[in-house]
Amino acid sequence: MNYNQYGRLHLPLEQQQKELEQLDFVSKNYNKLSFSNNIYTAFSNFFPEVTSNESLDYKFDLLAINNQKTLKQWLNKDNTALSNCEFYALALQLLNYEANQDFDLSDPFKLLKENQLPFIETDKIDDTNFIEALYLLLNTRAKNGYELIDNLADKGFFLKYIEDPHFNQHLFFNGKSLPVFDAQNMIREVVYVESDLDTDLDGQKDLLQVTIFRPKETDFGLKVPSLYTANPYFGGTNDDKNDLHNVDENLTKVTMENQPYFREATINTFEKTVLDASSTQHAEETATRQRIYRLNDYFFARGFANIYAGGFGTRGSDGLRNTGDPSETTCAKEVIEWLTGDRIAYTSPARTKTTAAFWSNSNIAMTGKSYLGTLATAVASTGVKGLKTIISEAAISSWYDYYRENGLVIAPDACQGEDCDSLAVVCQSNLKDSGHALKLQEQFKKQMAYLQEQQDRTTGQYSEFWDIRNYRHQLEKLNCSYIGVHGLNDWNVKPKNVYKLWQELEKLPIKHKLFLHQGEHVYMNNLASIDFTNMMNLWLSEELLNSQNNAAEQWPNVLIQDNIEADVWHAEKTWNNAIGAPHSQVLSELASEKVKIFTDNGQTFKQLGLSPRQWENAFIKGELSELASEQLKIRLSQNNTDSTLVGRPKINLSVASSMNKGQLSVMLVEYQKRHRLSIVPQIIEMNAQPLGYQFAYETLREFKPQTQTTDFKLIAKGHANLQNYQGKQAVDINPNEFYKLSFELQPTYYHLPKDSQLGLIIYSTDVGMTKRPLEQTTYTIDLTQSSFNYSIK
Amino acid sequence: MNYNQYGRLHLPLEQQQKELEQLDFVSKNYNKLSFSNNIYTAFSNFFPEVTSNESLDYKFDLLAINNQKTLKQWLNKDNTALSNCEFYALALQLLNYEANQDFDLSDPFKLLKENQLPFIETDKIDDTNFIEALYLLLNTRAKNGYELIDNLADKGFFLKYIEDPHFNQHLFFNGKSLPVFDAQNMIREVVYVESDLDTDLDGQKDLLQVTIFRPKETDFGLKVPSLYTANPYFGGTNDDKNDLHNVDENLTKVTMENQPYFREATINTFEKTVLDASSTQHAEETATRQRIYRLNDYFFARGFANIYAGGFGTRGSDGLRNTGDPSETTCAKEVIEWLTGDRIAYTSPARTKTTAAFWSNSNIAMTGKSYLGTLATAVASTGVKGLKTIISEAAISSWYDYYRENGLVIAPDACQGEDCDSLAVVCQSNLKDSGHALKLQEQFKKQMAYLQEQQDRTTGQYSEFWDIRNYRHQLEKLNCSYIGVHGLNDWNVKPKNVYKLWQELEKLPIKHKLFLHQGEHVYMNNLASIDFTNMMNLWLSEELLNSQNNAAEQWPNVLIQDNIEADVWHAEKTWNNAIGAPHSQVLSELASEKVKIFTDNGQTFKQLGLSPRQWENAFIKGELSELASEQLKIRLSQNNTDSTLVGRPKINLSVASSMNKGQLSVMLVEYQKRHRLSIVPQIIEMNAQPLGYQFAYETLREFKPQTQTTDFKLIAKGHANLQNYQGKQAVDINPNEFYKLSFELQPTYYHLPKDSQLGLIIYSTDVGMTKRPLEQTTYTIDLTQSSFNYSIK
Repeated sequence: MNYNQYGRLHLPLEQQQKELEQLDFVSKNYNKLSFSNNIYTAFSNFFPEVTSNESLDYKFDLLAINNQKTLKQWLNKDNTALSNCEFYALALQLLNYEANQDFDLSDPFKLLKENQLPFIETDKIDDTNFIEALYLLLNTRAKNGYELIDNLADKGFFLKYIEDPHFNQHLFFNGKSLPVFDAQNMIREVVYVESDLDTDLDGQKDLLQVTIFRPKETDFGLKVPSLYTANPYFGGTNDDKNDLHNVDENLTKVTMENQPYFREATINTFEKTVLDASSTQHAEETATRQRIYRLNDYFFARGFANIYAGGFGTRGSDGLRNTGDPSETTCAKEVIEWLTGDRIAYTSPARTKTTAAFWSNSNIAMTGKSYLGTLATAVASTGVKGLKTIISEAAISSWYDYYRENGLVIAPDACQGEDCDSLAVVCQSNLKDSGHALKLQEQFKKQMAYLQEQQDRTTGQYSEFWDIRNYRHQLEKLNCSYIGVHGLNDWNVKPKNVYKLWQELEKLPIKHKLFLHQGEHVYMNNLASIDFTNMMNLWLSEELLNSQNNAAEQWPNVLIQDNIEADVWHAEKTWNNAIGAPHSQVLSELASEKVKIFTDNGQTFKQLGLSPRQWENAFIKGELSELASEQLKIRLSQNNTDSTLVGRPKINLSVASSMNKGQLSVMLVEYQKRHRLSIVPQIIEMNAQPLGYQFAYETLREFKPQTQTTDFKLIAKGHANLQNYQGKQAVDINPNEFYKLSFELQPTYYHLPKDSQLGLIIYSTDVGMTKRPLEQTTYTIDLTQSSFNYSIK
Repeated sequence: MNYNQYGRLHLPLEQQQKELEQLDFVSKNYNKLSFSNNIYTAFSNFFPEVTSNESLDYKFDLLAINNQKTLKQWLNKDNTALSNCEFYALALQLLNYEANQDFDLSDPFKLLKENQLPFIETDKIDDTNFIEALYLLLNTRAKNGYELIDNLADKGFFLKYIEDPHFNQHLFFNGKSLPVFDAQNMIREVVYVESDLDTDLDGQKDLLQVTIFRPKETDFGLKVPSLYTANPYFGGTNDDKNDLHNVDENLTKVTMENQPYFREATINTFEKTVLDASSTQHAEETATRQRIYRLNDYFFARGFANIYAGGFGTRGSDGLRNTGDPSETTCAKEVIEWLTGDRIAYTSPARTKTTAAFWSNSNIAMTGKSYLGTLATAVASTGVKGLKTIISEAAISSWYDYYRENGLVIAPDACQGEDCDSLAVVCQSNLKDSGHALKLQEQFKKQMAYLQEQQDRTTGQYSEFWDIRNYRHQLEKLNCSYIGVHGLNDWNVKPKNVYKLWQELEKLPIKHKLFLHQGEHVYMNNLASIDFTNMMNLWLSEELLNSQNNAAEQWPNVLIQDNIEADVWHAEKTWNNAIGAPHSQVLSELASEKVKIFTDNGQTFKQLGLSPRQWENAFIKGELSELASEQLKIRLSQNNTDSTLVGRPKINLSVASSMNKGQLSVMLVEYQKRHRLSIVPQIIEMNAQPLGYQFAYETLREFKPQTQTTDFKLIAKGHANLQNYQGKQAVDINPNEFYKLSFELQPTYYHLPKDSQLGLIIYSTDVGMTKRPLEQTTYTIDLTQSSFNYSIK
């Protein structure tokens, strides 16, 4: 397993020595002391859990330096060097590898090389190179994926800072903030930020409940940055109320008449209240909700406050949900304004006493996955002051790309029938408080009726409703740096969301970085193959704490996890078709006939009694004749060498429908019998990673080859309404007339091993995503006029 | 869902009022204050998270008392009563049910009755009955399964006690200890208890590393009881070293010669060191290992220290593993001796300074599941002073019943090829420290060779090796009370372990209680259908804190979860065949032939390429002819009424083998197509149950009907060596000669619904449990001389 590491800085030796001295790993008298003494001084820090010398001696006696001798025995004599083998045998044990199990005491280098762990090439470690070796070791990733220095947190190494009332600051090591804050005893507060908007139309400005977790050190004058997660689920969810829309219905022919007239949501807007800083009070409510994100926790221990807010309509807040619209962005942004002193908040919904974020250094990062990451992108697009960077994971960049595609209603994976209105119902958690429900119920019903009309499940066309929910059209003000994270196998928030956003961000004068992992809708903080959390420490230490470590120079703009070997990360300058070479394939060259027909009979799925996922698997296999007749399958030629499919493939079809409407779907599949990676990261060790001292733990994971072989894998999909063959605006079509329909599939970066083969499946109803018409429709494809364009690297 | 509740005491009203006054729910001036005032006083305690009156008013405004009015609005006037409907509408909201979602504000009683929640039958709640209603409410289980009073812990209600330096004692409510201890800032220590034994033969007494988590209040004079978990896995496990034995080998005919001569393990025994109390010091090592058991955590917050020790051979301790032998029991017991002041411990393995458990009140309970629960039983059998009770879950009561059965080598579920030696390897975690490994390696190898010889996988016969590992033969000294917990679907530690132990415990003059749930090898603390944790609070408050609550009278000796409806718990006086009526069935009456033959061909399993679990399923189905020919299947008559199979069924076979050896297996199966319960409890809500203030959380779970129907369920199994037909001592048998072989199956308590049917499958190789002979053997059963005995209630 390669323990890739990008977050380690190469600093001058002088700086290394200074940092080691500061942490007491190296004595100020280093040059006057014997090598044994220097080893003793350094190694005593690895056992902060013992307080007596004899206990420490015992710990040294548990560490063998070779197959004959323990460190304690070695220290009994005054030695001037350790052999390099002995030093790295000790090093691996400190990194939590088991001697003579994970590695041989007589040859630590085999494992060091296998796991890509850094070491110094030398014969021996002595006074001349010990500082360099020690510094490198402390900044090396241990078996649990964390750097050795970070692993010392849980053993109490940093207690000397945590418990010292005179030590009240951030502390950096190798450019990153250290866990010197008391995470056991955090301050947990709730305040109510005053919005300028009144979304529930009660004539009062809506209040936004904000939950703050901040280090107690901030009560003694320290100012800290904030990681802020705008989280519509934070107040709980109304899962039982989520009535999904029926998708077993025929397509509706799109006309001018059956698309709704756009009207904005009705919202009252007020003037911002002017802050009177002199009158603010301390918060009067303690937070009782649980923290929800391990990445935030990690940074808490390192001196970053954690802020959570649900936004309008969530439990504790006023207002109504309005999935993705500008008011949602506004309320998420207003929390930042409070954090930078530009907005008032109250101690309670009584609105009598204001309270200020006196502890905030006004530098904020937004974090979060899915809807949470979406809001990070949304707020970044406002250019709000104080927001320095976002770490936006698996985020929606346009809600049309979440619930629609090319004129069709398209569901996220496993969310058939969900839409803007049902998601609003799920998140309208302030209804959980019956007192709130009594007051809001009527407006809430109106709001849901508004969403239901405007989202327009009848035609699926792009409209102004969707345009104001497209953050990519609002990037002109964006001025913070950007970290994007997305799973290449995410079928919930599809990767085209980050792909399209990335193309726009590249044009802006901001620092921007992208990580593409092999997971589905998951985060990557805890992967063994890359030091993501550590990289984020470097990044946030620079962006929010001014540590000036040049984080952006430490790794390439785009890092992409390989789909064959999970511990290989590919470096790219960007992610688009141009990083490969274009290929185009006329489909008739791959088939025996020039024209092909398939019929979507409208009943097959129900008759088979399969789940959408079972259907998809059976459909790709195509062994059942009922399914085979509903698709057109074309294989490209076999890959005679390793290569990589990059960017967004595009299909160009010449297609005729038997009706005056039609929906086309395309799957891109890779065929080869082999063990493919799981798309859920597998547990390597539960709670392996300590986030601070006696605090929370993260579980170490990685994608691993599945135990069963598979014959194929779905790489990408695309869907389009035939009426949209001319573009965003649907036009009339005639039955049995050929139209040229082109659309892009999901973007990818897919390592195609030698002898694998690509294939296309062209079909209509995509059971888990499209509507499922009940009527029979026949599609005819003219293969001579159809082609597949893709890019290969 | 029935929220069964056994841990609530019915106390005199006077006592209720006193307890409510103590917690400030009721004012000392109750009788002088208005009803509205009394409501205000009481309800303000439900929102300890707010500190101002206006914040509190807002919380009251979030609670509707009916579909028109909030509690705040109601409090604005001076009312003399709430209607019962209004009071219980509020009550359900406090219990975390959602108004007009989980229940109607206009009819809270429907849900109260459905969930079996207690309420007072009256028209209205006023000054005359409010105290009774409030006390009942605080002692009612909320939606998350915990009593309302316990749920207030996480909101900070008990902070007034936690933060008060003058409050330094246990506090009881309704007979149970309250979470008034600071679990955020616990004292975590490691000490080294001196054993009298030297198992690694280095000439020194072995030291036992003990980890202590104790409330910081104990540093200020408070003495607390201990929950002690003897846990051989606490120091980690050597999973990679676990070389399992090959089971694909022929049976060996048992002779006098091929059974090993018993020899005790070689262990040095020393005199106990006399304690010099005057010279003891504080511990000098902080614990760094994570706590492992949520039940212990729950009690930590309630003023019970948590003690973990791995025992000989585990990481941090000296010595060698010796799976289940008396030395293992001794070292687990010696920790208790230290806790009661009867044994010395050192601050470090340097053995220079001793340290005493000055904070211990010398009352100890042992807890734990599986091997951990086993050691609780083992230590109880020593009668050690200070051990007042054990909560022993899924515990082994005789190691022969774990790794052997009736003269055969029989694996626990999913542990084929495991044995005493391989388990010892897994737990010998002190080898993880290379310094320890250097010293121990030679003795460790000898020890493993000893176990391998003595466990005797060749013949599988009972011997003195196993007899000293049978705790049921050592119960004469046992004098503590007993809580047993076991899953009726536990195929790892099979229920016969607790069944056989129970029969012996019943003869002793001790309090004894048994819980049988529907799970596999899992614990039941967090089931929604029963207040197990709360019951244990009542139990331990009496046993260890002398709260004199008569816990043992609160519920019947045996509580058994129904296998059809998971929220029904059956009360029984005991668990044996006598609680039902005996039935006997001659097998020829159920078959068309009088003699039946089946042939175990020795190759089928491998040829089919199935996992043991897939094999078992296919074998019971019996559709494949290869599997059908290896079994004899007999159906009993259909059940024409609901009934329950109880105790241990017994099979009597007249059987001949084609060889001079043979192994017989029997499955008891219940047939009916229906949705059966999962045997893993399903998650109802993650982290729903707060164990204390800002501390750990437990997940609420329950067994639920599976989404798929199944046609059958395996109820019980049994296995026997044909050479053991006369009993424990194997004798020679002749090929093709009939022998009468009788053996019992697993005990059960199985609700047989109307129209279900029992069936027996008689066969030889049980792929997941027995050895898997390679040679072909034919078995002939004389059905006229074979019968099945069982008990029905």
